[in-house]
Amino acid sequence: MRILVINPNTTSSMTDKIAATARAVAASGSEIVATQPAMGPVSIEGYYDEAFAVPGLIGEIRSADSPDAIVLACFDDTGLDAARCATDVPVIGIGEAGYHFASMVANRFGVVTTLSRSVPALEHNLMRYGLAARCAGVRASDVPVLDLEREGSDARDRIAAEIELSLTLDRAEAIVLGCAGMTDLARALEEQFQVPVIDGVASAVKLAESMVSLGIKTSRRGGYAPPGRKTYRGILQDYQPQ
Amino acid sequence: MRILVINPNTTSSMTDKIAATARAVAASGSEIVATQPAMGPVSIEGYYDEAFAVPGLIGEIRSADSPDAIVLACFDDTGLDAARCATDVPVIGIGEAGYHFASMVANRFGVVTTLSRSVPALEHNLMRYGLAARCAGVRASDVPVLDLEREGSDARDRIAAEIELSLTLDRAEAIVLGCAGMTDLARALEEQFQVPVIDGVASAVKLAESMVSLGIKTSRRGGYAPPGRKTYRGILQDYQPQ
Amino acid sequence: MRILVINPNTTSSMTDKIAATARAVAASGSEIVATQPAMGPVSIEGYYDEAFAVPGLIGEIRSADSPDAIVLACFDDTGLDAARCATDVPVIGIGEAGYHFASMVANRFGVVTTLSRSVPALEHNLMRYGLAARCAGVRASDVPVLDLEREGSDARDRIAAEIELSLTLDRAEAIVLGCAGMTDLARALEEQFQVPVIDGVASAVKLAESMVSLGIKTSRRGGYAPPGRKTYRGILQDYQPQ
Amino acid sequence: MRILVINPNTTSSMTDKIAATARAVAASGSEIVATQPAMGPVSIEGYYDEAFAVPGLIGEIRSADSPDAIVLACFDDTGLDAARCATDVPVIGIGEAGYHFASMVANRFGVVTTLSRSVPALEHNLMRYGLAARCAGVRASDVPVLDLEREGSDARDRIAAEIELSLTLDRAEAIVLGCAGMTDLARALEEQFQVPVIDGVASAVKLAESMVSLGIKTSRRGGYAPPGRKTYRGILQDYQPQ
Amino acid sequence: MRILVINPNTTSSMTDKIAATARAVAASGSEIVATQPAMGPVSIEGYYDEAFAVPGLIGEIRSADSPDAIVLACFDDTGLDAARCATDVPVIGIGEAGYHFASMVANRFGVVTTLSRSVPALEHNLMRYGLAARCAGVRASDVPVLDLEREGSDARDRIAAEIELSLTLDRAEAIVLGCAGMTDLARALEEQFQVPVIDGVASAVKLAESMVSLGIKTSRRGGYAPPGRKTYRGILQDYQPQ
Amino acid sequence: MRILVINPNTTSSMTDKIAATARAVAASGSEIVATQPAMGPVSIEGYYDEAFAVPGLIGEIRSADSPDAIVLACFDDTGLDAARCATDVPVIGIGEAGYHFASMVANRFGVVTTLSRSVPALEHNLMRYGLAARCAGVRASDVPVLDLEREGSDARDRIAAEIELSLTLDRAEAIVLGCAGMTDLARALEEQFQVPVIDGVASAVKLAESMVSLGIKTSRRGGYAPPGRKTYRGILQDYQPQ
Repeated sequence: MRILVINPNTTSSMTDKIAATARAVAASGSEIVATQPAMGPVSIEGYYDEAFAVPGLIGEIRSADSPDAIVLACFDDTGLDAARCATDVPVIGIGEAGYHFASMVANRFGVVTTLSRSVPALEHNLMRYGLAARCAGVRASDVPVLDLEREGSDARDRIAAEIELSLTLDRAEAIVLGCAGMTDLARALEEQFQVPVIDGVASAVKLAESMVSLGIKTSRRGGYAPPGRKTYRGILQDYQPQ
Repeated sequence: MRILVINPNTTSSMTDKIAATARAVAASGSEIVATQPAMGPVSIEGYYDEAFAVPGLIGEIRSADSPDAIVLACFDDTGLDAARCATDVPVIGIGEAGYHFASMVANRFGVVTTLSRSVPALEHNLMRYGLAARCAGVRASDVPVLDLEREGSDARDRIAAEIELSLTLDRAEAIVLGCAGMTDLARALEEQFQVPVIDGVASAVKLAESMVSLGIKTSRRGGYAPPGRKTYRGILQDYQPQ
Repeated sequence: MRILVINPNTTSSMTDKIAATARAVAASGSEIVATQPAMGPVSIEGYYDEAFAVPGLIGEIRSADSPDAIVLACFDDTGLDAARCATDVPVIGIGEAGYHFASMVANRFGVVTTLSRSVPALEHNLMRYGLAARCAGVRASDVPVLDLEREGSDARDRIAAEIELSLTLDRAEAIVLGCAGMTDLARALEEQFQVPVIDGVASAVKLAESMVSLGIKTSRRGGYAPPGRKTYRGILQDYQPQ
Repeated sequence: MRILVINPNTTSSMTDKIAATARAVAASGSEIVATQPAMGPVSIEGYYDEAFAVPGLIGEIRSADSPDAIVLACFDDTGLDAARCATDVPVIGIGEAGYHFASMVANRFGVVTTLSRSVPALEHNLMRYGLAARCAGVRASDVPVLDLEREGSDARDRIAAEIELSLTLDRAEAIVLGCAGMTDLARALEEQFQVPVIDGVASAVKLAESMVSLGIKTSRRGGYAPPGRKTYRGILQDYQPQ
Repeated sequence: MRILVINPNTTSSMTDKIAATARAVAASGSEIVATQPAMGPVSIEGYYDEAFAVPGLIGEIRSADSPDAIVLACFDDTGLDAARCATDVPVIGIGEAGYHFASMVANRFGVVTTLSRSVPALEHNLMRYGLAARCAGVRASDVPVLDLEREGSDARDRIAAEIELSLTLDRAEAIVLGCAGMTDLARALEEQFQVPVIDGVASAVKLAESMVSLGIKTSRRGGYAPPGRKTYRGILQDYQPQ
Repeated sequence: MRILVINPNTTSSMTDKIAATARAVAASGSEIVATQPAMGPVSIEGYYDEAFAVPGLIGEIRSADSPDAIVLACFDDTGLDAARCATDVPVIGIGEAGYHFASMVANRFGVVTTLSRSVPALEHNLMRYGLAARCAGVRASDVPVLDLEREGSDARDRIAAEIELSLTLDRAEAIVLGCAGMTDLARALEEQFQVPVIDGVASAVKLAESMVSLGIKTSRRGGYAPPGRKTYRGILQDYQPQ
């Protein structure tokens, strides 16, 4: 099967890191096609960036060569609903993937993300997914996304400090790492804290493989029905539903 | 004061209708500037259209001539969070405006919208705003948005039929009309059913005027903090935060 | 239009302060009629006082000279439901007014009120209005209501200290001032903390004006239906529904 | 022990009926003192009546001869919070009493009350008590309260019809009768439907006896702290806290 | 009437302590039959022990000599749902008993239990009962259950320390003691903290007496319907429904 | 990897059917070990049966030959919490597995189960998992579990009738089949209704494989900490934690 992993931002080093994680966990028969939009923000930190990442992301879906499933590799699950209208193959966000797995190994899970600006969007997702009651709290490490790409940053220490608080103050029993760019830290942090530390990228790839192998597809009834045929004007006309 | 009313779709007849409502209710000192993006879908029906309406909508905000407040005139409150990051003047969605007023004149309110495809997005908004518990139910009339613009459609009858069900089956005490294109029907339906029938366009204009006159602005702390300076690539680079 | 602003307690200096705020924000065509009951407690701090403020408050409504809207100027929204049964003009509580505006400029808002005895009543209101999930927490400053009327009290400092905690510990993005008697502090505190600091009195006046100008009235169906004709006995017989 | 049972309305035939139920279930050592205010509405149907029943009700508490516990015998739990501030003996509403017992014998319970005007107040109570999620629905029989006192009314049939719907459509597993005036119907309806049919009056008396015998008193900390010493003006000055 | 009080663990000294409390509060006409299963764990601390306490507990119910009501005297309300299917007399858990009483004397109550391992099970119960919103927090004292039976342990001090935090940090207005083994501490802690400190064992006995005297039985409709006749295999065949 | 699939009831034909589904979807490297307890009920329909299925189920876990993951193949997720304390490998219930996948392909999902007696237990699970808000309703087909094993029953028709209602009345966008014994019907029903029809058995197997391959284990911190060393008495002493 072919799984399209879309990094919704335009930073290729992050796409590479995500692809490495995805390939490391993919089953032998799974081909990981990792991509990123040609247009949009270099990182997604909050609602504004999020909005501008979606057209490029949907563009990648429309031009993709019949993937069997799609992973959206930004932790705020950018464009997830729109993507589900654009295709009938399963579409998995790495945020939801992490939350779902965490809720099956812990009574309460904590989330450690990048900037405080991103926290409300994650809290809104948790509420929509229904999993807010399972979340012990979303903590910001105040590490900008692109610092995770930078040698010598103190990102890991700051993330570890928030994990410590999540386990002790918030009574989390497991941790979900709240950014695709943290994918390479999961194992070491799990070792350090001796609780499940869950990476959304890896989680989403396995959920995608699972759904393909089970033949589970996105519902075409109700909110994810294919968009009606209509005119899109201006530079967005390429995205017009047919 | 100047209030920028953005119809997030690209159908100018709907912009005209919205502008007429907005001007009819505006205070004497308020200038209504009604606009629509040059690019994007001709109507917004569900998640997919919504995603593609946002860049054009934000473009209108960025190029606007210092409005004092902004009204987003699509009932799914398209792009509301992103818009609030793009400016510090108040930004009001017509969906939330209708819900807030309804919750102050009724214990429970019903919503009657266009297509069933749009219902989940409205339900998600209600949950996020916190007002889901006040909503007696969102009903779809199965009237496509653009039929509201068409002479001779049976739109009004179908909307009235759902209002009847909302009042009797769902025990709604007031009705919120779930589409900007229904703005001209509110008064007659209120007459017919003898309960408050609330139009979001008019409601949002008055909330915008109120907030301007009170000096209430969008918070710059937390989720609506201005986006960090970063590179936007491709055709979206015009939207890059500075 | 004429807006009846009722201070539900019997302290006239507070009525004056409330009236001053109301007139300062009222539109040029709005006449503010400020009043207070002749009977009842001198301040409202908790459930007990609240219960005894209602008859006088409803009396003011019944004897009023056809106002177009009514503002109830106590932050616990004393008697709001009963008042809505007593008239079909819009009735706005200053508590709800503050919460609604705050929820349109911030993902989460904090409330700073007077005594801890009052906190549960405010929390119950937030739950009923549906906005509890948007509230970052209600904090008591331990300033008695009438201290806000007293020269030389340290009220402002204690309120400011709680705002600081609300923004940092509770992650509030905006503040709602939790007492009509704080109406004169809003601007200075907003200046100090650089986040929206919302005063319910001013907010309610603008909502009332808005609803009058839109023709939105209280629903007569369901919970706010006019009370049935029946006998009231004893000193309360003046309030008997006809 | 002495239990003060207050019928918050001023209809003495209803007080008699309530007293009969209370005495029938009281333990041998319990003295039931049944009373009603001299002032206030003859029946309580909705928010307006409720507000005017409270002062008389609190008056009965203040003039009572040291009861060991108090039962408020109106199903909307009129004045419950204020009453708890007025005394440190336990105060039990018949609504909450019915809900609590029902939730210990059924996964979901239905409520059948009098007029639809009263439904929102009951729903608000259920939300505040936390038991809304356990309630399968509140149904109005459209039987006015005083019809329950009238020979030859079809009240019982209409109540039975709603119980039938509650069990079948709403999947209720037990029924709570939603008016003190229904107290004499419980046994026969239980017989008819073969599910628990719970009467709040009897339930509250037993809860009151239980709490007295356990020495459980109303908390004096937080929301139920005794009201501060302050002036009450006008005809309400008799209720002034000392 | 005869009330069967089952200590679901197999430690007879705890059964004795529970029986002493039950008898101390029982009405003169109530016979307390205290028992414990012959098989199962010596203490119940968390989900695992809980699961293994149920068969013995149900065995006690099946072999009991027609009790009029049953009290399950473990604070996690072990086996409550299964027990309700096994009999039509009322079955009361000491956890729910404590929560229900606390919610009638306080706006918010705190719970202080034994080990942190038990906290999620209590939180799940609170959610199911609907009372989670009334709970200010469940705190673990890190006192193992059997330490409560041991002379010279510092259990009381550690419990008192958590009560202090619950009242100040969590804003609890009353405390529920979260273990049957704490039943002898309630009075002294209430004296110390001057807030209601509620013991579930005593509470459940009075609720059981109340329900018996009111004739309230467990519903046989829906989730508590008697189990269908079917084969149970192996050592559990003694529990087979007939 | 080796996945232990436990049918918690003692009907071997159902174990065979479950094993067939599990093997059909298992990855090539996965060995499915299907088993059932020697003791316990022949089917699980409601709380009572559930309680008696747990010891046998845990027994299977304790005697298993180091599985890499465990699937509990009863739709009420029998014994899930206890099982997670008994082992540190991932333990997946088929109920939760179905719910999690459904919530990733639909805004709202419906559940169609066997007897109405089982509905409350499923609703409680949905509440605990946090996914109740995503569920459009749990419907009972009134097909007893063992009828699903019987040739010539009308089980499929009755299940299909409830699916129809779930899609139309409840606005479900996908269906979760609410019994392990329905595992062979999923494909045909999906064909018939053209919406995702999700089988929990297959779903759980893929989640288990995913978690093993990602190294995600059950948290040992908090509620799923291994049970403390203590004595278990009587016939249950074999289950004593060491």
